[in-house]
Amino acid sequence: MIFDPATDKPQDECGVFGMYSASPNDLAWLTYLGLFALQHRGQEAAGMCVSDGDKFHVEKDLGLVTQVFDERRLDSVRLPNARVSIGHVRYSTTGSNLRFNAQPLTTRTNKGILGLAHNGNFVNALEVRSEMLSQGALFQTTNDSEVMLNLIARESDLDLVEATAAAMKRLRGGYACVLMSRTQLLGFRDPHGVRPLVIGQRGDGAWVLASEPCALYAVGARLIRDVLPGELVWFDREGLHSLTVEAKTPTPCSFEWIYFARSDGALDGVDIHESRVRMGEQLARERPVEADVVVPVPDSGIGAAIGYARESGIPFDYGLYKNPYAGRTFIAPTQEARELKVKMKLSPTSAVRGRRVILVDDSIVRGTTSRQIVNLLREAGATEVHFRVSSPPITHPCFYGIDTAARKELVASTHSVEEIRALIGADTLAFISERGLREAIGGPGLCGACFTGEYPAGTPLLNDVDKLALEV
Amino acid sequence: MIFDPATDKPQDECGVFGMYSASPNDLAWLTYLGLFALQHRGQEAAGMCVSDGDKFHVEKDLGLVTQVFDERRLDSVRLPNARVSIGHVRYSTTGSNLRFNAQPLTTRTNKGILGLAHNGNFVNALEVRSEMLSQGALFQTTNDSEVMLNLIARESDLDLVEATAAAMKRLRGGYACVLMSRTQLLGFRDPHGVRPLVIGQRGDGAWVLASEPCALYAVGARLIRDVLPGELVWFDREGLHSLTVEAKTPTPCSFEWIYFARSDGALDGVDIHESRVRMGEQLARERPVEADVVVPVPDSGIGAAIGYARESGIPFDYGLYKNPYAGRTFIAPTQEARELKVKMKLSPTSAVRGRRVILVDDSIVRGTTSRQIVNLLREAGATEVHFRVSSPPITHPCFYGIDTAARKELVASTHSVEEIRALIGADTLAFISERGLREAIGGPGLCGACFTGEYPAGTPLLNDVDKLALEV
Amino acid sequence: MIFDPATDKPQDECGVFGMYSASPNDLAWLTYLGLFALQHRGQEAAGMCVSDGDKFHVEKDLGLVTQVFDERRLDSVRLPNARVSIGHVRYSTTGSNLRFNAQPLTTRTNKGILGLAHNGNFVNALEVRSEMLSQGALFQTTNDSEVMLNLIARESDLDLVEATAAAMKRLRGGYACVLMSRTQLLGFRDPHGVRPLVIGQRGDGAWVLASEPCALYAVGARLIRDVLPGELVWFDREGLHSLTVEAKTPTPCSFEWIYFARSDGALDGVDIHESRVRMGEQLARERPVEADVVVPVPDSGIGAAIGYARESGIPFDYGLYKNPYAGRTFIAPTQEARELKVKMKLSPTSAVRGRRVILVDDSIVRGTTSRQIVNLLREAGATEVHFRVSSPPITHPCFYGIDTAARKELVASTHSVEEIRALIGADTLAFISERGLREAIGGPGLCGACFTGEYPAGTPLLNDVDKLALEV
Amino acid sequence: MIFDPATDKPQDECGVFGMYSASPNDLAWLTYLGLFALQHRGQEAAGMCVSDGDKFHVEKDLGLVTQVFDERRLDSVRLPNARVSIGHVRYSTTGSNLRFNAQPLTTRTNKGILGLAHNGNFVNALEVRSEMLSQGALFQTTNDSEVMLNLIARESDLDLVEATAAAMKRLRGGYACVLMSRTQLLGFRDPHGVRPLVIGQRGDGAWVLASEPCALYAVGARLIRDVLPGELVWFDREGLHSLTVEAKTPTPCSFEWIYFARSDGALDGVDIHESRVRMGEQLARERPVEADVVVPVPDSGIGAAIGYARESGIPFDYGLYKNPYAGRTFIAPTQEARELKVKMKLSPTSAVRGRRVILVDDSIVRGTTSRQIVNLLREAGATEVHFRVSSPPITHPCFYGIDTAARKELVASTHSVEEIRALIGADTLAFISERGLREAIGGPGLCGACFTGEYPAGTPLLNDVDKLALEV
Repeated sequence: MIFDPATDKPQDECGVFGMYSASPNDLAWLTYLGLFALQHRGQEAAGMCVSDGDKFHVEKDLGLVTQVFDERRLDSVRLPNARVSIGHVRYSTTGSNLRFNAQPLTTRTNKGILGLAHNGNFVNALEVRSEMLSQGALFQTTNDSEVMLNLIARESDLDLVEATAAAMKRLRGGYACVLMSRTQLLGFRDPHGVRPLVIGQRGDGAWVLASEPCALYAVGARLIRDVLPGELVWFDREGLHSLTVEAKTPTPCSFEWIYFARSDGALDGVDIHESRVRMGEQLARERPVEADVVVPVPDSGIGAAIGYARESGIPFDYGLYKNPYAGRTFIAPTQEARELKVKMKLSPTSAVRGRRVILVDDSIVRGTTSRQIVNLLREAGATEVHFRVSSPPITHPCFYGIDTAARKELVASTHSVEEIRALIGADTLAFISERGLREAIGGPGLCGACFTGEYPAGTPLLNDVDKLALEV
Repeated sequence: MIFDPATDKPQDECGVFGMYSASPNDLAWLTYLGLFALQHRGQEAAGMCVSDGDKFHVEKDLGLVTQVFDERRLDSVRLPNARVSIGHVRYSTTGSNLRFNAQPLTTRTNKGILGLAHNGNFVNALEVRSEMLSQGALFQTTNDSEVMLNLIARESDLDLVEATAAAMKRLRGGYACVLMSRTQLLGFRDPHGVRPLVIGQRGDGAWVLASEPCALYAVGARLIRDVLPGELVWFDREGLHSLTVEAKTPTPCSFEWIYFARSDGALDGVDIHESRVRMGEQLARERPVEADVVVPVPDSGIGAAIGYARESGIPFDYGLYKNPYAGRTFIAPTQEARELKVKMKLSPTSAVRGRRVILVDDSIVRGTTSRQIVNLLREAGATEVHFRVSSPPITHPCFYGIDTAARKELVASTHSVEEIRALIGADTLAFISERGLREAIGGPGLCGACFTGEYPAGTPLLNDVDKLALEV
Repeated sequence: MIFDPATDKPQDECGVFGMYSASPNDLAWLTYLGLFALQHRGQEAAGMCVSDGDKFHVEKDLGLVTQVFDERRLDSVRLPNARVSIGHVRYSTTGSNLRFNAQPLTTRTNKGILGLAHNGNFVNALEVRSEMLSQGALFQTTNDSEVMLNLIARESDLDLVEATAAAMKRLRGGYACVLMSRTQLLGFRDPHGVRPLVIGQRGDGAWVLASEPCALYAVGARLIRDVLPGELVWFDREGLHSLTVEAKTPTPCSFEWIYFARSDGALDGVDIHESRVRMGEQLARERPVEADVVVPVPDSGIGAAIGYARESGIPFDYGLYKNPYAGRTFIAPTQEARELKVKMKLSPTSAVRGRRVILVDDSIVRGTTSRQIVNLLREAGATEVHFRVSSPPITHPCFYGIDTAARKELVASTHSVEEIRALIGADTLAFISERGLREAIGGPGLCGACFTGEYPAGTPLLNDVDKLALEV
Repeated sequence: MIFDPATDKPQDECGVFGMYSASPNDLAWLTYLGLFALQHRGQEAAGMCVSDGDKFHVEKDLGLVTQVFDERRLDSVRLPNARVSIGHVRYSTTGSNLRFNAQPLTTRTNKGILGLAHNGNFVNALEVRSEMLSQGALFQTTNDSEVMLNLIARESDLDLVEATAAAMKRLRGGYACVLMSRTQLLGFRDPHGVRPLVIGQRGDGAWVLASEPCALYAVGARLIRDVLPGELVWFDREGLHSLTVEAKTPTPCSFEWIYFARSDGALDGVDIHESRVRMGEQLARERPVEADVVVPVPDSGIGAAIGYARESGIPFDYGLYKNPYAGRTFIAPTQEARELKVKMKLSPTSAVRGRRVILVDDSIVRGTTSRQIVNLLREAGATEVHFRVSSPPITHPCFYGIDTAARKELVASTHSVEEIRALIGADTLAFISERGLREAIGGPGLCGACFTGEYPAGTPLLNDVDKLALEV
């Protein structure tokens, strides 16, 4: 048995990247750097396609960016006169045919050859797919990108930009996409802006699209602005163009600030690190407790722990060592060995010995990992463990591209806070309030569907969820 | 630089295989054995898909059958209740996206999930593709199978068998295909029967389709009969069904007997080994010469050399050793080292020393290899070298699935026999006559387009050939 | 070009591990867990050998523990009745024959088959090697372990423990070794205790030796004590035995506390994390500066930054994001791209914007990385950057197993602190004093040869250093 | 389960190769070509070392020559001024530590760094090893080469040539070795010349040593002569030197002519192909039978079958197709599938249908394969099968480097010819007589120990055979 000693965290499904350069540029290399910066958004597969206006090369495979793109393979897509490129990293999913679902998806259409990569989900994808199947379409993957491409190809009379806008109107959900032809780069974000997408520009004029600003910085570009909810942008020799296809109340995913996004950037105008510190401060105000030390679960709890310590005046300390090699899969030959995964990753330092500890983490999904961490601290001599969480309880699944586990596995959907506390063995347990979270993030509206069950962009038909299972 | 020390031979593009079993059977393992027996028809990629009526698994990749299907990967397609399977081996082609073009191609359609593998070419594929693109279809590969699948999917109102028959009518060329749904296996051959396809049955009742009989024997099946030109056969719980879609004058490819097919079988009722011996006998009658020894170019010249020796009374001997490891790629660091490829593969024995040698080979394409072999024999002390070829001069390209090299590279399309003789340095050179070849093979009509330029199933529009180049 | 985007840090050369179990135990699996916990001590190669008293299996190769030991390979050393095992991880070195130098080294001797793994260096290895070569010995590696094994084998009349003690007396330097026969586990540490080695025991009675306590915890063992300087311990059916071979003033390597050792343990009685916090506090007292925020270079500067913040009252913040995937090699196609390595690994957060930053790191070797980090902070809007280092300037090379770079590359051996400050572009720069460091660590004596040039266990003959170069 | 669908044949253990060039030469590339030509002598591992007088590089690993030496790895040993090289291919053996036993073995000694590769066995290796162990030597492998190197190193007062001669005198057995220092190439053959070694020279003056002439031709060298039994040759700036260390009655291994050696060369003055034809002629005279066709078991039976057909006047035909991909390992999931190995490799053609077949093979070891081949022919319609073998019955194991299977597995050591005939199901069975074989080969004396049990160079002590088992 092989398992991934992963945290019990919500998982983002993807990161996207794209570039347009009016003059020839080393786009394969730059896309490689951009994808490397987005690696935290997806570790299962990576891919890119590159065009020089004539040739159109694609490489993709299962693995990390540095595994998929060894020297030989990167060379194979390094066109000397490259002008357009897109790239993708994908989060680990289960099921067969993993390899064939890697992105970008490339296809020949009546608008020439196209490449598409997306982050997120179309909630009515199956409905649209059924309709198109009955019209004679083929679906070679179970990938939502293929639905989008079929919708674009169906509009024979429209040009690529118009056809893309038409396809956006037909699909609902939370998504951010990059799309390229031999000569154009397009990017678009769902009407609520659930999934992020930012625009950057390099000193040499080249344009960049990416899921997060870190990927802009990685290629030497500066952040210009976020793509707006419902906006379609495209780049060609004349520069940046924009079309508002369909804008609704902005509700970007709150988990980007809680957990997903790298702390070295801002999305929709709100700095990630600062918002995490504010969440910790808010949590300290909402849920104070007497203790000796504030300890983060590294690395994602660090920002909130700093905030909690700052607001409460209780010293911050580094009470859990994180093994930097623990992200790599290792062999666990017995079922009991699964228990080892947390232990191999996190190990308490002397900072918790004989102390009352406030442990700060960003979320609790199933609670299994939390219980083990509390246990580790007690074994290391912590006299009290007060668990503080910088997100509200997750009670509902996400249909917009986040893998939160099925609803029945979400501990907070079936247990009260007190029951969870007992389960994980903490002395006290408290979550930030939903209102508190919104204040800490500030800025735009927020999607909090996983806390509230209110889905701004709707949900799939139940019927479709079943079909999905059948079709695998 | 890496090169394949291959012979200068025409190359078949593929081998196909399929099975239907009314009761559960170990189809992945059997398909593996069948593909292994067909390995000579394609070494670049291998793949199979298997269904148990519910699940539908596919695995394919670049590499030999034994490389693609290691234990782990074969296990991943071994469904306990498998009832339908198809498989494919592909010949080495050039170009990018090789991996994505591997077969079988699988897709979801309004007829459920389908898998298709083919051998051969549709000469009007680009024309049909253009038409369908303009109707909104996507093409994710440059693979002819995808055109066929789009044609099948387009017929929303027909069932799978009817839709396949309709698709056959729309396409021209030389092809043999295997197609499967979750519950049916289909096989079909072009109206002229250019590419081969045979039907077999195992003792346990399971049905088998394969490019050659050797694959039937490999899975313990006996040969029932050839699929007829223009026939569509299918297998389900009720057994074998047949429909004649469109039958024309049978013209199976003569190169199956000359070179491609394994010598341990028969196609369209004509034994391969015996026909090769007859070609040699015919050649001895048509083109006798005084000499001391008849030497084959191993392995493909052996049958004809035996026939030549038998008819002429000149002793057969083993004058060229063939290194069995030479088929594997090896590194050639300098351009001059390319010259080594023949030398590393073939090496003269003492049987040619001081002797007048009749060297028998099956074909000459570019002539470069032939020149080197003649040279090797002379260096080893052969006093005369008389080159005899068991096929007529190849003067035209094949459009039905054989890679013969572009016309301008075909030495016989631009040189007389005497010029070729001078080029390769033989004392005499002679090819079998086209009439002699037909007599030696006997049996059905034959496609000899590469000798005569008469293409029974037509040729692609010139325009399409250009487009093909553009679209890569 | 492929490079490792590593920090400009001193590098430990190895981690060692060993187990003895009187009753059969799953030692391969436990050794795998132990090595995984020691992965930070060496990433180039990993290996282990295991015996059940009869069979003696070894597996080793280049790669991380999880790469070398995939399921198949781990299974190949999982003897059902295993009783003795040792393991090793090695830091990345240069030179040819890397694969053959992987440890443990195994050999047949007049004391039966032996396996040895070591951390550290014998400074008179070449001298001893020369002597043994002239007596007819073979050396198949450039590995110091082979010298030790030859010394042991030479003592034909002594048993394994006595011969090992004799070999220890013949060699000088800083080292910690684990050695096994089919039935015994031995461990020993140089007379000054320069390199660490700890003893642990599991609940089931099995004994463990490891470079650091984290590896004991990983296999469910508790820390019993450190092996003493100059002590030889061994384990057999009767339990733990000890012999003091040659004890001198203890001078354990100060860099274990500064940087190498994981923060979740203690060596020679001194807690790693606490000593780092004290170094930061000491630094704040010795080298105060007015500023807005204390920022660690993650992860190694965290402990000292916490101490500095605590002592100075200036807020601690997370000002540098560390990409967790940056440890993996990636392709850098141009020389200029080497510059990217720091940028791809570290990225400033908003915590430094508009602030006067105290940046805390553990050491400066060449200074190149430090310059880039300072630059990153300034670009992100830091108004001042005050660099504080929790080790004294490194002016001398290490001969006891640490790769610090040649002396001429050590920036502090050729530049004053002010010159280094100018070079790295900081507003102020200060190092902890040597006396301050000793106070912060407290406990035992310390080896500070790299700060002072005083080598407690001597240095190699200059002549030998040259020979070393010649012999590669 | 993975198995090698190998023939039931004796297996050679190795091929050796070496070059000396007074002027700089591309020795890594030439050694690669030489080893490629010797691939039939060993498929498990390959390796080479190269020196330019200063550097001394080695690369070796499990795999075929083309697998071990991909472009990157070959480049790593391509020294621009290379002057000496040796190489080795090894036959598949069983046991652990396979990787560490790959050759050439390299070691530092008092005569500088040395590389050694051997073919064959020292029958008193364990005896010598025991003696040296008690004197304090280490043995890191179970490889005979290490014994030879220890013997050479022990002679501290002698130069390399003298020490090698001394070592030759101490060892008994059948062997051929190549040995290199930074500036010299040495080659030597046991006193009886059991294992082959030939000398060649290129037009540019470079000297070559190889197990067979084919490797000379592969690097553009011509055959100068065989190394004589008991001769030690060496090459340096002054050219070829020779010393007769200890010559006894020459008894080269008869199986080189029967089966091992490539048919495109001569050993000890006797042409391989011609001798095989003569074996077939002799067999036809000794053991005539009435039949319709003579069919070889390809490829090794071809020469003898040609001879049998020639002498008997019965037509030669190609009655068994050999799958050229069958040498590669493939997966066999069930025990019953082992039976498939012959079937996947050999397949009857129509040449045997309705005919009385004389089947010619070179040897029968266990008889299992022979039984299956006979069965295949009968199923294909052969009316009679007369089995003729061009070697006498193998009744004794080889101790000089050939893996013949343990004595109890040799069918001829426990069964009469008639019993074997019944076992394999042939109508008649006959072996060539020992006298007939000697006449057919002619030329030198021959080692026929496996037919007669008379071992010219002695056998190992029984006691040592047991120790060998214990020591693994």
